[in-house]
Amino acid sequence: MKNIFLSLNLCLLCITHTAMADETPLTPASVIEASKPSDWRQPAQSNLLHMQLENGEVIFELAPHFAPNHVANLNTLVNDKYFDGLAIIRSQDNYVAQWGDPNAGTDKAKSQGKAKAELEPEFYRQLEGLEQMTIESRDPYADQVGFSRGFTFGSDDAAGKDSRAWLTHCYGALGAGRGMAANSGNAAELYVVTGHAPRHLDRNVTLLGRAISGMELLSSLPRGTGTLGFYETPEEAVTIKAIRLGSQLPKDQQSRFEIMRTDTKTFASHVKSRTTRLNEWFLDSTGKIGVCNVGVPVREVTE
Amino acid sequence: MKNIFLSLNLCLLCITHTAMADETPLTPASVIEASKPSDWRQPAQSNLLHMQLENGEVIFELAPHFAPNHVANLNTLVNDKYFDGLAIIRSQDNYVAQWGDPNAGTDKAKSQGKAKAELEPEFYRQLEGLEQMTIESRDPYADQVGFSRGFTFGSDDAAGKDSRAWLTHCYGALGAGRGMAANSGNAAELYVVTGHAPRHLDRNVTLLGRAISGMELLSSLPRGTGTLGFYETPEEAVTIKAIRLGSQLPKDQQSRFEIMRTDTKTFASHVKSRTTRLNEWFLDSTGKIGVCNVGVPVREVTE
Repeated sequence: MKNIFLSLNLCLLCITHTAMADETPLTPASVIEASKPSDWRQPAQSNLLHMQLENGEVIFELAPHFAPNHVANLNTLVNDKYFDGLAIIRSQDNYVAQWGDPNAGTDKAKSQGKAKAELEPEFYRQLEGLEQMTIESRDPYADQVGFSRGFTFGSDDAAGKDSRAWLTHCYGALGAGRGMAANSGNAAELYVVTGHAPRHLDRNVTLLGRAISGMELLSSLPRGTGTLGFYETPEEAVTIKAIRLGSQLPKDQQSRFEIMRTDTKTFASHVKSRTTRLNEWFLDSTGKIGVCNVGVPVREVTE
Repeated sequence: MKNIFLSLNLCLLCITHTAMADETPLTPASVIEASKPSDWRQPAQSNLLHMQLENGEVIFELAPHFAPNHVANLNTLVNDKYFDGLAIIRSQDNYVAQWGDPNAGTDKAKSQGKAKAELEPEFYRQLEGLEQMTIESRDPYADQVGFSRGFTFGSDDAAGKDSRAWLTHCYGALGAGRGMAANSGNAAELYVVTGHAPRHLDRNVTLLGRAISGMELLSSLPRGTGTLGFYETPEEAVTIKAIRLGSQLPKDQQSRFEIMRTDTKTFASHVKSRTTRLNEWFLDSTGKIGVCNVGVPVREVTE
């Protein structure tokens, strides 16, 4: 019985069946199969954020080309081992998981060392100069959507230098929580999107990365029973063993990923294969796509 | 510290702060506060599907106006207590949880009694005659989107009787899994969307309801480690104690909900409040909305 649902799938594990035995239809799997080594990049270890939990590791790729100051401040915090022993304090269904210092704002708060306490927002940047590939999609929230170095972004149609680009709140996006003031986020309190993309947060909060591995550890956390999914007791909170950059880890603890380059013809084929579904299971091949449903292929390199 | 994130929220629990002390801004909370009893409906007990798990209950509202034959077959299965003792067999991250008979397709499969083994697909229906309220949204997948009796739907721009309407795969949507053949789904194997809306499944599979309570029990399930998130051992599978219609339950075990009517001015105000965010936290009030981000307010009646 399991087999008949194999085709109900989104992912790289696609098993495709086709009536045209002589010709491989364009599917996510066939695109990867036909890809060349140069279609992939290995992210810098200094851009990989390892969140070590009791039951495994979530790994994020950081986006300094969108949020250089937040990434820099996060690096300062991580270098100081700020997050070690802190906790996931919130898991709100169909929304976000959030972590930081459970004692923040009290006199038991952990020192943030040399990190800046406030940062000017990096909600968006100038579109001009952004390495980008736009896709054809009627997006509810942005005039244009696309990919930049593996990250989904939206942009507006303003002219020339006025045009803005911003990272989008797709599943797995990593953000810096903030309070009422625009500059009150400093990457000491972070969240990740665990539900349907809350795109109304776009341009209201700084995004600085996205999960590339282990997302299920955060998305399957028990939901908090407090208001907005906050855990109500310290016992519920999930301890963070450590957060490290890949570049801080001994070589044998580093993970090596290959991420499909999003500025290639191969990635354009990937988008096409996700837009028009040629897997036999699809009776209506759709022919349309939302930016958060494209996905960027990631594979771990094991030697 | 928790307080400063209170405003980072999606839901009915909104605590709103406003600079305009004299005038209540249109927020989801203010819309509910100003609503009249006639803005709400109590769903029929015969349309409420109670999925009873060891750790609680998930409750779905069924959509016979979109999938009458699948709802009827599901009723037959539920009347026969078909699901009692079966299991959740799959949890795929950012996609679906799925349940049914782990032995389906083998000689240990549970009898489906008088239920039909195959059903003609109900992937869409005629738009004409559908009770509906459309919303202004640039939807990636459908020409028009809106709400019908509390359910999100999409439709196309074909003329007159050719125009089709279909339930959309938003978070919490309940579907009838199928194999390769269009008629191979019969509601004996069901799934619910637990991640970002996989809208490419629209019109490819029959949707027949949506979760209105307890979704977190399904969305926070451990992800299966097998292909496509299938659980690999019987031990991983989560037993279903029973599935019942509200109308089959003793009165004291029924739940009574009020769901905001989606054909009212009040619901139009709700959509507006979700489109343009007047909560002070939002520095960019967005002014745009995706259909899966609207949400239909549901409240439980306790006397």
